[in-house]
Amino acid sequence: MDFEKIITAARGETPVDLLLTNARIVNVFSGRVANGSIAVKDGYIVGFGDYEAAEKLDVKGRCVAPGFIDSHVHIESSMTCVSEFARTVAPCGTTTVVADPHEIANVLGAAGIDYMLRSAENQPMDCLFALPSCVPATDMETAGARLNAADLAPFMDHPRIVALAEMMNYPGVIFTDAEVMAKLALARGHRRTMDGHAPGLSGRRLFAYTAAGIASDHECTRADEALEKLELGMHIMVREGTCARNLDALFPIISEDTWQRMMWCTDDRHPHDLLAEGHVDAVIRKAVAKGLNPLTAIRMGTINPADYFGIKDAGAIAPGRRANLVIFSDPGDIRAEMVFYMGKPVAENGRLLPGVQRPAPVAVPPSMRLDPHSLDFSIPVKGRRIRVIRAIADQVITRCEIMDVTEKDGMAVADVAKDVIKMCVVDRYTGRAHTGMGFVTGLGLKRGAIASSVAHDSHNIIAAGVSDAGLQAAVAAVVEMGGGLAAVDDGTVLASLPLPVAGLMSDQPVETVRQQMDGVIAAAKALGAVLSDPFMTLGFLALPVIPDLKLTDKGLVDVTRFEIVSLFV
Amino acid sequence: MDFEKIITAARGETPVDLLLTNARIVNVFSGRVANGSIAVKDGYIVGFGDYEAAEKLDVKGRCVAPGFIDSHVHIESSMTCVSEFARTVAPCGTTTVVADPHEIANVLGAAGIDYMLRSAENQPMDCLFALPSCVPATDMETAGARLNAADLAPFMDHPRIVALAEMMNYPGVIFTDAEVMAKLALARGHRRTMDGHAPGLSGRRLFAYTAAGIASDHECTRADEALEKLELGMHIMVREGTCARNLDALFPIISEDTWQRMMWCTDDRHPHDLLAEGHVDAVIRKAVAKGLNPLTAIRMGTINPADYFGIKDAGAIAPGRRANLVIFSDPGDIRAEMVFYMGKPVAENGRLLPGVQRPAPVAVPPSMRLDPHSLDFSIPVKGRRIRVIRAIADQVITRCEIMDVTEKDGMAVADVAKDVIKMCVVDRYTGRAHTGMGFVTGLGLKRGAIASSVAHDSHNIIAAGVSDAGLQAAVAAVVEMGGGLAAVDDGTVLASLPLPVAGLMSDQPVETVRQQMDGVIAAAKALGAVLSDPFMTLGFLALPVIPDLKLTDKGLVDVTRFEIVSLFV
Repeated sequence: MDFEKIITAARGETPVDLLLTNARIVNVFSGRVANGSIAVKDGYIVGFGDYEAAEKLDVKGRCVAPGFIDSHVHIESSMTCVSEFARTVAPCGTTTVVADPHEIANVLGAAGIDYMLRSAENQPMDCLFALPSCVPATDMETAGARLNAADLAPFMDHPRIVALAEMMNYPGVIFTDAEVMAKLALARGHRRTMDGHAPGLSGRRLFAYTAAGIASDHECTRADEALEKLELGMHIMVREGTCARNLDALFPIISEDTWQRMMWCTDDRHPHDLLAEGHVDAVIRKAVAKGLNPLTAIRMGTINPADYFGIKDAGAIAPGRRANLVIFSDPGDIRAEMVFYMGKPVAENGRLLPGVQRPAPVAVPPSMRLDPHSLDFSIPVKGRRIRVIRAIADQVITRCEIMDVTEKDGMAVADVAKDVIKMCVVDRYTGRAHTGMGFVTGLGLKRGAIASSVAHDSHNIIAAGVSDAGLQAAVAAVVEMGGGLAAVDDGTVLASLPLPVAGLMSDQPVETVRQQMDGVIAAAKALGAVLSDPFMTLGFLALPVIPDLKLTDKGLVDVTRFEIVSLFV
Repeated sequence: MDFEKIITAARGETPVDLLLTNARIVNVFSGRVANGSIAVKDGYIVGFGDYEAAEKLDVKGRCVAPGFIDSHVHIESSMTCVSEFARTVAPCGTTTVVADPHEIANVLGAAGIDYMLRSAENQPMDCLFALPSCVPATDMETAGARLNAADLAPFMDHPRIVALAEMMNYPGVIFTDAEVMAKLALARGHRRTMDGHAPGLSGRRLFAYTAAGIASDHECTRADEALEKLELGMHIMVREGTCARNLDALFPIISEDTWQRMMWCTDDRHPHDLLAEGHVDAVIRKAVAKGLNPLTAIRMGTINPADYFGIKDAGAIAPGRRANLVIFSDPGDIRAEMVFYMGKPVAENGRLLPGVQRPAPVAVPPSMRLDPHSLDFSIPVKGRRIRVIRAIADQVITRCEIMDVTEKDGMAVADVAKDVIKMCVVDRYTGRAHTGMGFVTGLGLKRGAIASSVAHDSHNIIAAGVSDAGLQAAVAAVVEMGGGLAAVDDGTVLASLPLPVAGLMSDQPVETVRQQMDGVIAAAKALGAVLSDPFMTLGFLALPVIPDLKLTDKGLVDVTRFEIVSLFV
């Protein structure tokens, strides 16, 4: 920002670039709306009123609000790269996101963060980041990377880094793990905000967590939980993601006394929701539909996150702030009719303007170090009974069931009649293809196999299938795409969604991703899968921090006991 | 702060030091009051409820609020050093101040800031600082120091420095003076807040000022002025000082939509007011008496300034924050019955507890480089008419009057009959004793002389008297004290207030300062002075940034034209 140029223009000494006239200007500082004109120079707001301008745009009495800010989002969940994500959410009125590149950091470590930072350049919105605090999530699996405080330190002063991201390792905080303490001290020393993640934490354990200086939580699912956290000083990020939707539950505590310390976030939104519902705008619409003052809803999506993160040049229509603007007609149903980023129109009526350039792609390091054809998925029988993962529809938790093994030629095999399907998780990082084997019930597969490189949190390759050959073919299909989702039958790939960016993200437009996603889900259902999104369920079967029984490349994990257990009881 | 110790205590693993039981706990995050206990360890709040504690204190159902924060204060205006100031305001419930050591910086430069930082150690409250941004105020006088951005830089990362102090040089901002821009860039680069000072600034000039990122103003005297500034993103510090009192004027704009961005400050409070009225508590009481919700008034004096300055360990009763607490009975008339600083009681019922140690004094550099006996105050007549400063009661502005000179032996002299008194301002810094001479009307002196080393902003020695010998004796009295205020008659010092700390502050208790102040004022009145506080009026006659006519050691300054003018017209 060239302060001299901006200040000189504010004074009226030099003409401004753009004057938006006849606007109903939303003031997030006072909660008032004023009629007037907004003057923009070099991408920044410089003043109000009648400035000499190179260009004037009559907005015809419509409302102009600051661009929306998503206070916590994993871009990877959109399954699109930064460029395509930005092109998807900018038309929704989102002009700033604070993204936590947790998933790609688990795959690629510092190189993944670096890739995201470089990808954020020249987008039609500001992509800021919080530094992933918990990579890897556990030591119960082979991770793509380990990020200690020393690894995070070089990023701390990067202008796009505004926070330490959600500290999911709350036991590490509460029991003062040295490495966790070092990360918090690092953020504190750089005057960066520390985001929290403490679902259900309460009482003394929550006191301990907040005493460390962790300042937000986006995991509240109950009003009393959110109020307890807010009263301990945490800023509450009200999440409306694809799976986790908390606005209904938390709405009762949004009051004139609390809204100042609350804001919106989407956390994880899948392609379908981004296209069908929108982004932060959808959360604001929902809140307003539930009866929240539109001004308050806007403030919670603009100045509140800006203040919370110390983003001084966004979140308001005021001199010295970026001219990131959303124009809409109806405060009761806010839909972005025009979106300005840095003083330039980037979208109209939900569509990106054709003139908005897509930056050249940033090279992404490879993340598939394995030969899928050398894998052995056989399981010699070592007992009569086995631990089986029970998948539960639309849940990330599982249950552990003890079942009789089905044996063939001395090997434990899938048993379609009992809905017991074979599973594998294959390490994609070391080149040694460590493989954990198990069985799952509840998926419903009757034929073939499905596989994915989106397998939280380490994102090894996870697959489920009725035969070893099917597993082999599905894993091979994923590896050959450089990552992605695939459904195979009889050695034929029925459908696939390539995710060449770290095995997590596509480089295609979100519409394409959605179509490909629909394709693989349909194919999985054709193979017998019974869940609404079998790949999402599959992707969480490897997450060893959510109970009860999970599978990693190191084997079955009893999450309650937090240890590896044998397949055979 | 030993996080490990605090977190472990929060968990309940180790006993806490103190448990305040039976408390009505003011929650500044939600605006609610809850009954409960507050657990304190190592000076920090660790949790609520029934902790095992080394000591329990039943507060018998009284309210417990966070200690109050003064968001902008010049300690020098109390005329006491940091130790005595702290001992004065802590019993009022003030546990944090953000002080701008502007006056001592004008006298001693970086050494003055360093002195204040060192004096702040081991006090019964947290003395934080904003770095003076405008030293010297002008080049129309000989200053004790010049602080450029490069001089401020070494202080920026000091843990007690939270902001760049009030940027009074608003023309410098608006016209992008290079040195001013450098100071703002310095603060921005260190993620420090930038305080403003822009009385009456409005419209485009205010847009320009705020575009630079200046984030607060404590100079609003009208509601519309404050609302304009607030709507541009400035945080409004509502000032209640000794002279400038703005709460009545600004009260109408404090609403549920705006209080979040407003806070209290005292700016300049003299000894008498500190003793008679109090400090931040007095502002809170006044606001509540005017009808403000006590919870809102407390929030504006606690969490709001803490959030604004990024002071993460104060301003609330929450785990990880300093156990700075105010106990009171009546929310409608908040008077600190007990004050805790870092978990220790420091005051009860308006009195400092005897056990509170006064830290050893910090050596202060000398600031009186002149020999008062070599001065020559004679003014050879060079014309018939002269410019005379008209002092105005209780105002810092003056007027310029053109009057006939009174001549004696070829010299211009005082004329008591016409109330035209001789004045001098003597440079106390260079050793060369540059002296500016002039005349003042409105003071009313009939005999003797008065002198002071408190002469804004450069604090040279200012004196007014009926004879050269009187001026000489008065200046000599000030110099011999190492600075201070004096009234003399016939070569006898009638009364004096020694200010050995930079000629600005006493090392005595504020009660002593008030008595000495009463003494010098009484003596000045005995000499004929007609103003309520002749020394305060005198002290502003040298301030060359407030119209119309002022006197510095360089001569008479026409402030409207911003240039030195001759005495004789």
